Amino acid sequence: MIEPVRPISIDDIGQARARIAGTVLRTPLVKLEMGDGAPDIRLKLENLQPTNAYKIRGATNAVARLSNAERARGVWTISAGNAGQGVAYAARQIGIPCTVVAIETAPQTKLDRMRALGATIVPVTYDDAWKAAESHEFPGLDATFIHPFDNHDFIAGHGTMGLEILEDAPDVRTVIAAIGGGGLISGVGSAIKARRPDVTVLGAEPETAAPYALSLREGGPRKFPDWQASFVDGAGGKSVTERMWQRMRPVTDGTITISLKQTAEAMRLIAEKSRTIAEGAGALSLAAALTGQAGQGPIVCIVSGGNIDLNKFAELVAT
Amino acid sequence: MIEPVRPISIDDIGQARARIAGTVLRTPLVKLEMGDGAPDIRLKLENLQPTNAYKIRGATNAVARLSNAERARGVWTISAGNAGQGVAYAARQIGIPCTVVAIETAPQTKLDRMRALGATIVPVTYDDAWKAAESHEFPGLDATFIHPFDNHDFIAGHGTMGLEILEDAPDVRTVIAAIGGGGLISGVGSAIKARRPDVTVLGAEPETAAPYALSLREGGPRKFPDWQASFVDGAGGKSVTERMWQRMRPVTDGTITISLKQTAEAMRLIAEKSRTIAEGAGALSLAAALTGQAGQGPIVCIVSGGNIDLNKFAELVAT
Repeated sequence: MIEPVRPISIDDIGQARARIAGTVLRTPLVKLEMGDGAPDIRLKLENLQPTNAYKIRGATNAVARLSNAERARGVWTISAGNAGQGVAYAARQIGIPCTVVAIETAPQTKLDRMRALGATIVPVTYDDAWKAAESHEFPGLDATFIHPFDNHDFIAGHGTMGLEILEDAPDVRTVIAAIGGGGLISGVGSAIKARRPDVTVLGAEPETAAPYALSLREGGPRKFPDWQASFVDGAGGKSVTERMWQRMRPVTDGTITISLKQTAEAMRLIAEKSRTIAEGAGALSLAAALTGQAGQGPIVCIVSGGNIDLNKFAELVAT
Repeated sequence: MIEPVRPISIDDIGQARARIAGTVLRTPLVKLEMGDGAPDIRLKLENLQPTNAYKIRGATNAVARLSNAERARGVWTISAGNAGQGVAYAARQIGIPCTVVAIETAPQTKLDRMRALGATIVPVTYDDAWKAAESHEFPGLDATFIHPFDNHDFIAGHGTMGLEILEDAPDVRTVIAAIGGGGLISGVGSAIKARRPDVTVLGAEPETAAPYALSLREGGPRKFPDWQASFVDGAGGKSVTERMWQRMRPVTDGTITISLKQTAEAMRLIAEKSRTIAEGAGALSLAAALTGQAGQGPIVCIVSGGNIDLNKFAELVAT
C-alpha cells in the first residue's frame, strides 16, 4: 500500500511553494562574517520558522494534499520533535487532530511545544520510533499517517528551500544539509539539481549516527552499527532505508561526517555571528563547511532548526 | 554649520532603499506564537543584519551620500557600539578609514566587533559621548563626522524598515521602536506616517533613561534627571535635544516606559519563541507591546539589535 518512490519534480516543488506560502516563512539567507580569506558561507535560517524548524514546509504541503476523507480521520506522525511540531501546526491550521509517536528522550522544549500545538503525544523509545518509520505503521493508530521523511509531498515541501536558495544566491556553488531520515536533502537536492545540476549538494551527519556516509562507501543502503544518542537529536538516523536511498542518491554528491565537538563549535559560531539559536542538527551543515571539505564557496548551509532547551544552549555557548 | 532639521520625505527613504539594497538584509517579520487570546505581535528582526543591528541601514546610506572630498578625509562617529559597527562596516565597503568615539563601558562584544571591522576606537565616558552627540563635535578629530542619529541621511536609511513593514504587514495597526537618540523612531515614523497615517507609532524607553516620556509629559525637549546605566546599553538617552524633538514629535504618537525586569523577560521570550538573540534595547519594543498599552495589534515590534555578550545573554535566559 506504500506508493513506489518516484522523483520529486520541479513542478511538484513549485506547486508546494504556492500551497505553503501563507503559513511558512520565506527565510533569509545571511552571510557569515568571518573576515578576509575565510570561505564564503551563507546561512539559510530555517530556525526562524513558526515552529523553529524546516519541517513545517513539508508538513504543511502534505496536510494540504490530504483528501477530505483522510482529514476526517485526523493525522499522526513519528518524530524526534520537529516533524511533530510541523504536522501539529499544519493540522491545527485546518482544525484536525494530530497524534505524534514521539521519542521519549526528546528535549523538553520539543515535547512541550508539540503539546502546546494541541498534539497528543505517544512516547516511545528511539528504537521503536525508528522501526515505525521503517515499516510505515504503529499498532493502535488508525488516523491518516504522514511519514516525517519518506513521503513524496513532505519532501516536495522541503524542496521549496532549494528554490529560495537559488533566488537569493544565484552564485552558489555548494549546498549543505543535515541528514536524519533524508527528507531534507532529498527535497533540497531535487530542486537544486533540476535547476542547477552544476551545484554540489552535500549531506552532514554526526559521527555518532552516520549511516549515509557508510552507505555511500559501501554502495548501497546500510544500517549504522554503532549508533549513539547525543545532543544532535534532530539528525543522524539508525539506517538509510532502501526507499530513502532511492530518493537521496540521485540528488546528492556526498556527505561529511562531523564530530560532536565540531557541532558545538558551529552552534557557538552561529550564535556569535548570526545572533540566532541553532540546535545541534541545525549546526551540522556549518560544521561541515568549516572542515574545508566543501571548498571555498559560495556555500549555503541550511540551519535546519533551533529547538534546543535554552539551558543546554546557554551551557554550550557560554565560555 | 549644522543643516537645519527638515522632514524626511518618502522620496528620501525610497532613494535610500535603492542605495543600501546590496549591503543591508531585508529582514523578516516573524509572528510571535503566543497562543489563543494573546495580542497579534510580529517581530522585525534587525538583529539579523550583518552587524546585528539596524544602524547599518542609516550608516550605509549616510556614507553612500558623501562627496569624494568628504570620503577622502575618512569618517568618524559616536557610539555605544551599534552605530559604530554600522559606520565602520559602510566605511570598509568603500575602503575609507573610520574612527569611533565609543563609550568605554560598552559590552566587550561591541568593542571587539568595531575593531574587527577596522575602526579606530577613542574610548570616552558616557557623559562625554553624549556631549559630543549634542554638540556635533569632538576635539582633535578632523575626519568627516557622521552623526549617529541627528543626521538626515542616517535617519532616511532607517526609514527603509518602515517600507518593509508596510509590505509585510499591510494589516499593521501599531509599530513600536526603542528610543535612544531618536533616529530609529524618526526614520520609521516618517515612512509609516507618510504612507499610513492611521498606523500608531510608539516609542519604548527603559525606566532608567526615559527622556522622551518626560519630554512628552512636559511638552518640550527635556534632559532626564535621574539617568542610570543598565544592560539596556543600546537605548535610553540622557536627553531629547531640540533638534531630535523636531524630528520625532511629528511622526510619533507616544512612548511606553519599561522596567529592566520587563526587558529581561522580553529578551527571554524572544529567545524562546523566535530563537534569536536580542540585546536589552532590542527587546524594549516587545516589552512595551506586552504591557497591554499598545492594544491588540497587529503590533510590529522592531528588534533593533542583538549585540550582547553571550555570557550575559546565557545568564539572562537560563532558568
